[in-house]
Amino acid sequence: MDPNLMPPLMYQLPRLKWMQSTWAGVDSMLKHLDKTKPIPNYTLTRFGGVFGPAMAEYVISHIVNTERRAQKQWENKTKGLWSRSGGIHEYRPLEMLSVGILGVGDIGKEIARCCKTFGMTVWGMVRRELSQDKRSPYVDHYRKFSELPEIMQKCDYICNVLPSTAETRGLLNGNILENCKEKKSVFINVGRGDVISEDIIVNAIQSGWISHAILDVFETEPLPAISPLWKMPQVTITPHVAAVSIPSQVAEMFYDNYQRYAKGEELKYIVNLENGY
Amino acid sequence: MDPNLMPPLMYQLPRLKWMQSTWAGVDSMLKHLDKTKPIPNYTLTRFGGVFGPAMAEYVISHIVNTERRAQKQWENKTKGLWSRSGGIHEYRPLEMLSVGILGVGDIGKEIARCCKTFGMTVWGMVRRELSQDKRSPYVDHYRKFSELPEIMQKCDYICNVLPSTAETRGLLNGNILENCKEKKSVFINVGRGDVISEDIIVNAIQSGWISHAILDVFETEPLPAISPLWKMPQVTITPHVAAVSIPSQVAEMFYDNYQRYAKGEELKYIVNLENGY
Repeated sequence: MDPNLMPPLMYQLPRLKWMQSTWAGVDSMLKHLDKTKPIPNYTLTRFGGVFGPAMAEYVISHIVNTERRAQKQWENKTKGLWSRSGGIHEYRPLEMLSVGILGVGDIGKEIARCCKTFGMTVWGMVRRELSQDKRSPYVDHYRKFSELPEIMQKCDYICNVLPSTAETRGLLNGNILENCKEKKSVFINVGRGDVISEDIIVNAIQSGWISHAILDVFETEPLPAISPLWKMPQVTITPHVAAVSIPSQVAEMFYDNYQRYAKGEELKYIVNLENGY
Repeated sequence: MDPNLMPPLMYQLPRLKWMQSTWAGVDSMLKHLDKTKPIPNYTLTRFGGVFGPAMAEYVISHIVNTERRAQKQWENKTKGLWSRSGGIHEYRPLEMLSVGILGVGDIGKEIARCCKTFGMTVWGMVRRELSQDKRSPYVDHYRKFSELPEIMQKCDYICNVLPSTAETRGLLNGNILENCKEKKSVFINVGRGDVISEDIIVNAIQSGWISHAILDVFETEPLPAISPLWKMPQVTITPHVAAVSIPSQVAEMFYDNYQRYAKGEELKYIVNLENGY
């Protein structure tokens, strides 16, 4: 079921053995966990393994659109204007660019693979040191949470893919984006909106720390009409559609997990209810 | 040198041994060849091997933009409107799509590789049957010129990469695009504008044979202000910038070829002056 429908039922289903979420992110359910009660003893699995490709399409196309001034080109088209000025002709090819991916799980790895296809330099931030066999061959440089400033200093694009957990909420608040000021990086958020406050993004743009923000997720969704982000030309806003659940894929994944369940095998994409991912 | 500067000099340089073009396409020079005179006996090399990645970025980003209604999303952003309607939420991921690449040389192969990275089904049209060792592993189905209607019937996107030669000029004129009418394919042209007439594109859209055209090259460039293409919402126009010559890359390629020349080795990207590619 959709995890946002779960909070009122969370402690009301004593016979529940397993719940399959239809969404990749389950924070809308888990943030209602009551820490004074024991952790529910059913298994929660999330909708995994399918959002990576859609997220990667989103990230690559928005990087190309930003570099090539696609919006300006569309405006010119609407006006009947043939013009190469304003950066339309002098763009950077992807192979000259670096991207820092914050969160290199199944989605982040797929973004890394596609960025590498186009020759980008890929940095990846992970919560804890990964053993060699868990590393992606498409990530050139692995760094830990504590080394985030270095990633910001080195990358033209900073792409947040982190889920919303106690560890990630507000992670990009404060002055950390000041580390982007040399590169004037572009910030992309396809993870969760609560990793950063809206006023921090506005300030980072107004201070010239980042040159652009491409946002699919927000602290409050839908993004309120009064948000200053709407009026800023350096901000691209999409309505939480970087990756969407396609019903046939949800059914397929449920069927696969159901077969595993029936055979007593380990389910795929099990969520640890304590750390939230 | 730039090949468009060459026509008045073509037969005036008796001591010329080798000319390196700074452009990938050399039709602006070769269409001025005088068939009553012997073929010039210098070697012409074109700027090769570097446009593929830029072309692939262009093709992938425009396919994603088309599927996800990027232009509509930008319009919504400008209006301060959070909306998923009009196809913004129900888009097709690339892995569900097929692309037919007309011309699978070094550029077409790179486009194929990137389309395959995203799971697309790739059809390739080649002038003549290719031996197995010359085929790309990223092209699922090879077809010849004569089988173009089948490609149009099977593909969601038709991407022309062909150079301008006697064999390709006007290739897509007539009613051939009617083969797209089942799929309502999208036509992309990053090759040369003279492969198809403007009125044929207009007619194909008005007849509902193709749903959209993404055009970087035109019969006449700049595209005249009176062209009906400017006013059609189903047309994306970019000012011949899908791939641009980056000075440092031109210098690098010239240096590489110059070293080959000095050592008496075979030059790279030699153009056959008779067939034009």
